[in-house]
Amino acid sequence: MQQVTIVGLGLIGASLGLALKQLKNPPRVVGHDLQYDAATRASKLKAVDKVERYLPDAVVGSDLVIVATPVGAIPDLFARMAESLSEGCVVTDTGSTKREILLKAQELLPSRVAFVGGHPMTGRQTSGVDAPKASLFQNSVYCLVPSPTAPTDAVDTMVKLVQQIGASAYFVDAAEHDGLVAGVSHLPYLLSTALVRSLAAGPGWREMSAVAAGGFEIATRLAGHDPKMFADILATNGDNVVMQLDRLVEQLECFRNELVAERPDLFKELEQGQKHRLEWEAQRRRAAEKL
Amino acid sequence: MQQVTIVGLGLIGASLGLALKQLKNPPRVVGHDLQYDAATRASKLKAVDKVERYLPDAVVGSDLVIVATPVGAIPDLFARMAESLSEGCVVTDTGSTKREILLKAQELLPSRVAFVGGHPMTGRQTSGVDAPKASLFQNSVYCLVPSPTAPTDAVDTMVKLVQQIGASAYFVDAAEHDGLVAGVSHLPYLLSTALVRSLAAGPGWREMSAVAAGGFEIATRLAGHDPKMFADILATNGDNVVMQLDRLVEQLECFRNELVAERPDLFKELEQGQKHRLEWEAQRRRAAEKL
Repeated sequence: MQQVTIVGLGLIGASLGLALKQLKNPPRVVGHDLQYDAATRASKLKAVDKVERYLPDAVVGSDLVIVATPVGAIPDLFARMAESLSEGCVVTDTGSTKREILLKAQELLPSRVAFVGGHPMTGRQTSGVDAPKASLFQNSVYCLVPSPTAPTDAVDTMVKLVQQIGASAYFVDAAEHDGLVAGVSHLPYLLSTALVRSLAAGPGWREMSAVAAGGFEIATRLAGHDPKMFADILATNGDNVVMQLDRLVEQLECFRNELVAERPDLFKELEQGQKHRLEWEAQRRRAAEKL
Repeated sequence: MQQVTIVGLGLIGASLGLALKQLKNPPRVVGHDLQYDAATRASKLKAVDKVERYLPDAVVGSDLVIVATPVGAIPDLFARMAESLSEGCVVTDTGSTKREILLKAQELLPSRVAFVGGHPMTGRQTSGVDAPKASLFQNSVYCLVPSPTAPTDAVDTMVKLVQQIGASAYFVDAAEHDGLVAGVSHLPYLLSTALVRSLAAGPGWREMSAVAAGGFEIATRLAGHDPKMFADILATNGDNVVMQLDRLVEQLECFRNELVAERPDLFKELEQGQKHRLEWEAQRRRAAEKL
């Protein structure tokens, strides 16, 4: 790859730029972001070689175009860059939902380019501002969702990129992807927000917020994330999130009944929950060691 | 204080021992724990001057007895130590619920001692094993729930102790305490466990657990905690937890309706949730700076 364009220079976009610039033979990286601050920060960090404020000029001549903006902005960007994309260019994104994006890519991108959707399973760990870093993708899973028309070498390009930044490629189709992340990513965010909303609207919030400590801090951390980004995500994955939400509410009703009846089954359920969580931790550690 | 006894040498008990031993004029600290490993660790860390395996001998001659075991073990410990407590001794606990403990203290402890219930709003931040440390209570809130019969000087003893270990005393009655922690501590734990249970029992868990990352890690961290400890807590605070759970499920149903109807209200709710969370963070920072 001679030249890569990154559209959207937030945490993910700027971190991808830094990771690319650390490769042995780094490509030229062109960045584009309508937010002056994000573009300036990426320049200063040397995550991009050049900032180009006019989108068509930013993508011209690039072998790879990475769209790393909130999901809701992606279709419009596809439309606006379409005419300027070079023959054989690979286009990818980092959006948190994939069905809508794949459809829009087929509809809006020209047939001379290949679309391979992507979703790095990483991101903000704090509720504050995380600084971009080249190591963000180390030991993480990177979902790849190739368009049905994408040729093998375009897919290979993405697999190689994923490996080079230290991540592990995970192939999945768009429908399955959206089902999986509804459970492990979108529902947790909604839950965290529901918890804050429910407590803050209830009696005793003033006193509760005074005594709230570690458990509350963890349980509501996701609620501190960008609501605009999540509104986009939920708007393109509502059906899956509702399905997961219904299952969760059923589980909560089950806990409720056990609490009211003071049934010892509750302890077994708590024990099972701990077991699943600890197993997941162990599995994650093993996967990271293998990489 | 000449001598303090700590019954239960887990994270909280051993950290209290370390904090006491760092005072300018530290008391002699006697420790008691039926688990050999916990007692040995506390000794090695110098959180206690002496380990005494026979409970009555551990409390004899102490000015302050701190019971830092899971809630379910406390009543039996009160009964077993009652006869050996010295005249004028202050007894406190660190249990996560307070109504039942206050009743048991009145029923089981002799009138020659004063009971001032306590609950340090701190604890494990990770799902692994946290090492005890003297600084655990720094900048934290420490709830105090004096028994109605506790004399002023016993309450003053506890306030002084709380200040000396770097925390801020927060007076609250047992019923209010249990209501507050149901919302900010016990419900978050139950939610985290419900999320893991619901996902792990559903279709696609194998694939979900492979792509689960930061959001899932945070949202299920509390589920990794000791189920026995939480079963005790829930058994003594079920009514409050059920009330909070019902409010939360109502909020989730509201989100569900907004998702299904694709109503823009959802974005406002997410925005409000972020606002509450960020306000809480700011308030917490200010409180820590004041200490």
